[in-house]
Amino acid sequence: MKIENDLILRAARGEETERVPVWVMRQAGRVLSEYRATRAQAGSFKSLLMNPQLAAEVTIQPVDILGVDAAILFSDILVIPEAMGLPYRMDEGKGPSFENTIQSQADVDKLSTEQVLDNLKYVFDAITTIKRDLHNRVPLIGFAGAPWTIFCYMVEGRGSKTFSISRSMLSENPELAHRLLRKITDATIVYLKQQIACGCNMVQLFDSWAGILNKDTYNTFALPYIEEICQAIDTVPMTVFAKGAFFSMEEMGQLPCRTLGIDWHTSPEFARRLAGPDKTLQGNLDPAVLYGSEEFVISETKRMLDRFGSHKYIANLGHGVYPDINHEKLKLFIQTVQAHQFNRS
Amino acid sequence: MKIENDLILRAARGEETERVPVWVMRQAGRVLSEYRATRAQAGSFKSLLMNPQLAAEVTIQPVDILGVDAAILFSDILVIPEAMGLPYRMDEGKGPSFENTIQSQADVDKLSTEQVLDNLKYVFDAITTIKRDLHNRVPLIGFAGAPWTIFCYMVEGRGSKTFSISRSMLSENPELAHRLLRKITDATIVYLKQQIACGCNMVQLFDSWAGILNKDTYNTFALPYIEEICQAIDTVPMTVFAKGAFFSMEEMGQLPCRTLGIDWHTSPEFARRLAGPDKTLQGNLDPAVLYGSEEFVISETKRMLDRFGSHKYIANLGHGVYPDINHEKLKLFIQTVQAHQFNRS
Repeated sequence: MKIENDLILRAARGEETERVPVWVMRQAGRVLSEYRATRAQAGSFKSLLMNPQLAAEVTIQPVDILGVDAAILFSDILVIPEAMGLPYRMDEGKGPSFENTIQSQADVDKLSTEQVLDNLKYVFDAITTIKRDLHNRVPLIGFAGAPWTIFCYMVEGRGSKTFSISRSMLSENPELAHRLLRKITDATIVYLKQQIACGCNMVQLFDSWAGILNKDTYNTFALPYIEEICQAIDTVPMTVFAKGAFFSMEEMGQLPCRTLGIDWHTSPEFARRLAGPDKTLQGNLDPAVLYGSEEFVISETKRMLDRFGSHKYIANLGHGVYPDINHEKLKLFIQTVQAHQFNRS
Repeated sequence: MKIENDLILRAARGEETERVPVWVMRQAGRVLSEYRATRAQAGSFKSLLMNPQLAAEVTIQPVDILGVDAAILFSDILVIPEAMGLPYRMDEGKGPSFENTIQSQADVDKLSTEQVLDNLKYVFDAITTIKRDLHNRVPLIGFAGAPWTIFCYMVEGRGSKTFSISRSMLSENPELAHRLLRKITDATIVYLKQQIACGCNMVQLFDSWAGILNKDTYNTFALPYIEEICQAIDTVPMTVFAKGAFFSMEEMGQLPCRTLGIDWHTSPEFARRLAGPDKTLQGNLDPAVLYGSEEFVISETKRMLDRFGSHKYIANLGHGVYPDINHEKLKLFIQTVQAHQFNRS
């Protein structure tokens, strides 16, 4: 079935496009009052993501309200540990937390990858509902957390400034770490394949905690598993967004994926130089720019576009939009991208 | 007065040394049981740093117990905002917080740089006491927060994952931001000069929140003020440690300071290539390595040393030592540096 606006898929495949496509990380979120209303109706973040009809609603909202060139599934990277047997809570203003964490071989052995598809039926139902209601206007992006980031939450039990418990496991017991990463990777591949089977047109891996490792540990404990996932997902374009992993940009340029997400700390020139000419790049406006005046938002957006260029490029912020941003500023960002005339000299 | 072991000063000046000098960020801290005892005696973190005799004790402890090649003043970067009129609390397990924050021109105008030396008399008394009790065995390092990091605390009121309020001020009201940074810079120069007058043999600027900016904002709102401080401090070697600011490594190579601190995300080769051949580099073992086995600590330390090389180099961790590290592992790190034989082929 033909997608009406498939700009983002073509940009991801490296094809020339009439204009640069744009979407925004966390576009389905608190920045929109319509999201906040649906979320209030659901009662909680987790009830919202477990309710296929409401999850579909908030997924489609930014397409209608902001005019983005792609929808991204409304879900959470932590559904995977939960589906493997490690339930989590999401407390307002406090972030996620796990009552049980992984500390030993026995803990890893107890995790199951068998029930992942059954346990995540609500996600696949949401995808089916989104595909039905989106009427192929724009592509739907599926996603999962990268194994290292999921590992951090499973070992640490919550967010952390230093993730010392997780990083100490890499030093103290690398075998145990690899065993857990292996299991997460297996579950993630099964999960993403089913997202695609249900209709996702592209998928993104979020490695939110990449930036607490160094080049050696990232290349040892994170990249090999990402590579394996990229290899397994060979039917739709894949994006890898490893926040803060500037140190492994060259290695990421070698991954069998189409697109690399670039955070706002990394300059377009640095990313292109190290990742090489083949990859499509995605990013990377500093989300704090949207606190500025309209003139500032426009000029910074245009400057970003000219630095990335019109080819092999998907515009986005360099991180999820902050919830207290005025959504009119976000809209202005999107419209500035969509109206931009590149100097083709 | 001649300092017995002046390795670190010579390394900072770029001179050849018999061996690589080493100290550790947060060496005067919770990793040592002796520190915890003195801290308990003081009652609280702030009572400890405001008590010159006890602050001197904990400053000297790591020289005796760990055998480091430098002492670093036990203090806190937040004494500067406090001395300018913005008091803060330090709550156990919660980090620092300010009751009042800077939001307007009027708030900035109320800050005073006049009383900084009077208000920080306890710091200078601590330095005098340390110099008396250290008997010139090793150099004493003074320090301050870099203006951008101090700005973050004064505007945000506490630590934050995104420092959105601070970064939004850069977009919304750059003039106000510059005015505050100007005032912090003036206070910091006066403060560091007095640390040196009291006997500090070198000084370090800590830009802990450098890594939340991008190259443009860092070069606009952070580096010019650091440069000004470097220029003003022309009597002792100066170190700039901008955590996470890999994107401005080239510009930092141009700063009028002797040494650049390197965090554990940045490889020695990357730092040397971008900073150029003149600077002394300081760092950068991943603090989480110290969770590993003795063999692992030794092999990773040796690998780090061989990558940095024996010249223009001061060994350290890439961040403050974590408080739950076994201090024997920290000692092993220090001894491994001090015993290392470089291959001079």
